[in-house]
Amino acid sequence: MTDQDKRASLPLDGARILIAGAASLVGSHTADALLETGVKEIILLDNFAFGTPEAIAHLEGNPRVKVVRGDLMRLPDLLVATEGVDGVLHLAAYMTLGFAQTPWQAVDVNIRGVQNMLEACRVNKVRKVVFASSNAVYGYGPGISGALVEQGPFHSAGAPPAAILYGASKIMGEQLCRQYYQKFGLDYVVLRYSTVYGERQHYRAANALYIMETYDRVRRGERPVLPGDGSETKHFVHVSDVARANVAAFQSNATDVAVNVSGPDPITTGELVRLVLEYCKSDLQPEIRPDPPGTVRLTSGGAFHIPHELAKKLLGWEPCVSMREGVARLLAWRERKEVAKPS
Amino acid sequence: MTDQDKRASLPLDGARILIAGAASLVGSHTADALLETGVKEIILLDNFAFGTPEAIAHLEGNPRVKVVRGDLMRLPDLLVATEGVDGVLHLAAYMTLGFAQTPWQAVDVNIRGVQNMLEACRVNKVRKVVFASSNAVYGYGPGISGALVEQGPFHSAGAPPAAILYGASKIMGEQLCRQYYQKFGLDYVVLRYSTVYGERQHYRAANALYIMETYDRVRRGERPVLPGDGSETKHFVHVSDVARANVAAFQSNATDVAVNVSGPDPITTGELVRLVLEYCKSDLQPEIRPDPPGTVRLTSGGAFHIPHELAKKLLGWEPCVSMREGVARLLAWRERKEVAKPS
Repeated sequence: MTDQDKRASLPLDGARILIAGAASLVGSHTADALLETGVKEIILLDNFAFGTPEAIAHLEGNPRVKVVRGDLMRLPDLLVATEGVDGVLHLAAYMTLGFAQTPWQAVDVNIRGVQNMLEACRVNKVRKVVFASSNAVYGYGPGISGALVEQGPFHSAGAPPAAILYGASKIMGEQLCRQYYQKFGLDYVVLRYSTVYGERQHYRAANALYIMETYDRVRRGERPVLPGDGSETKHFVHVSDVARANVAAFQSNATDVAVNVSGPDPITTGELVRLVLEYCKSDLQPEIRPDPPGTVRLTSGGAFHIPHELAKKLLGWEPCVSMREGVARLLAWRERKEVAKPS
Repeated sequence: MTDQDKRASLPLDGARILIAGAASLVGSHTADALLETGVKEIILLDNFAFGTPEAIAHLEGNPRVKVVRGDLMRLPDLLVATEGVDGVLHLAAYMTLGFAQTPWQAVDVNIRGVQNMLEACRVNKVRKVVFASSNAVYGYGPGISGALVEQGPFHSAGAPPAAILYGASKIMGEQLCRQYYQKFGLDYVVLRYSTVYGERQHYRAANALYIMETYDRVRRGERPVLPGDGSETKHFVHVSDVARANVAAFQSNATDVAVNVSGPDPITTGELVRLVLEYCKSDLQPEIRPDPPGTVRLTSGGAFHIPHELAKKLLGWEPCVSMREGVARLLAWRERKEVAKPS
């Protein structure tokens, strides 16, 4: 190992870590994982436009956790928030639905917001940035099949504008990190999450939502809906695996690299619906339903999977939550939540 | 032809056309071409950050030409400038060098600037937008070979950050046009120019510059430099062909489409150097020179060409200036300029 390599590792014991977009599914789980590593302080930055106080409620009162209301579009906020910070996990982003509904804000946050954060990190000599990217950088449509490896191109033919805008914005976010590394030596790791799901799931991610919708139907006694013939591939990753990947990205010697962060195996929508029915002990039969005209759904060109061998090699990370276990954990959380709430 | 199709044609006789980024190579030639079609008025919008008064000096005093100093980042400028305008040609953009040197401004102009212009067009009911995109949407590196057709993906493995940022910004610009078409019915045509060259050539476009540099060396009596072995492919398009394509895009019934605008044939750097030597009647021998380490050059993965059959089909346009003719026109202009100037 060279000195150069060694310098890219950020030991977390005693470190101060800022999470941008922290009041979120991935943010809250990563905060939990970081607290277990012996960090000195975690700064949870959010503007609470989408993030909810509920997502980080369990951390309230923890003396090692500080919540900062700040906006990525205000560089002064970030210059103050990153003072004395060792590492930044940049999660805050609009996704495809955001690019469809509020494209001005989405452009702001996903591109200028990343630039602002990198600039704040440069000024305050933050040692390492972990940037949350997405398998959206491989795109959509007929080009998406087989193994989506890290060096692959971006396919967009036939995809809706908002999906292409989202994917391209993540490509730009990754390259802005690379530019800060090349110009200023700011170490970074890009993690390309596949579809994240798990406890504290929100209702904004189109793909992950499918598990919840299926469960909701089954609980109401309605047949779950299978779009197409149920053979469509999804590749999820459980949020606890994502949190571990974020931690590993800080700790590892890896820098100036982008790696996939995906679950153990892909799954078809048919198999996924069967897992939900199994969990619910239901004998309802899925209803195969063609999409109504005009539906925006991000389909692939065939069976695909998102390999995570590079993450294993460079970060020493691999996913450990299977779809069966992950779905059970998500739905058990959902049930506890229902029980806790007055109806 | 359906009514829908007919509505997308913008007859230019009596029309008012705004060119954003007009004080430029493509802008000035397109203004010339538009004046020949019987337009009522051409509005040349530029902030003169890169555009030069020199590029549009020959249009000074023309009663049908109005020069407006305005900035794409100021929506109010655009709301005023597009009042009563029938068509907008959006050229203004930063290229790869801009994304390397001034990434904040490049992000502003290439993404937010496009959004601002589309918004102004929506508000003022502009009938058609022609958006200048680039073959940079196909990317760089080993993936670039064979025919770069309009449905192809974006390759980026191995390319420098600034080049990827530029390509992705053009992908986003195209998709913002598509989004305005889908949401608000704003007709548009995306033209993906290959490397533009020709009279009034500026010195900022890395690829087109090669012709000028070669000529400058030969005129100084120095051997022209061939990077690599001279087999590298380039696909140029002469600016007069680009100007005709812009005009055709307004006039045609095409809408909601992206087409390549490339010259008749690709050329290798070896052939290009021979054309320059032939023009100069020089018997100098090219010097094959490997790139010095750290050079940023945007190479392809092999021989490639950029087909323009779709532009012919949809716009009735095809290029007519061969490389031999185009190089001769460019260099003759250069010579006239030298003669005109006191040395």
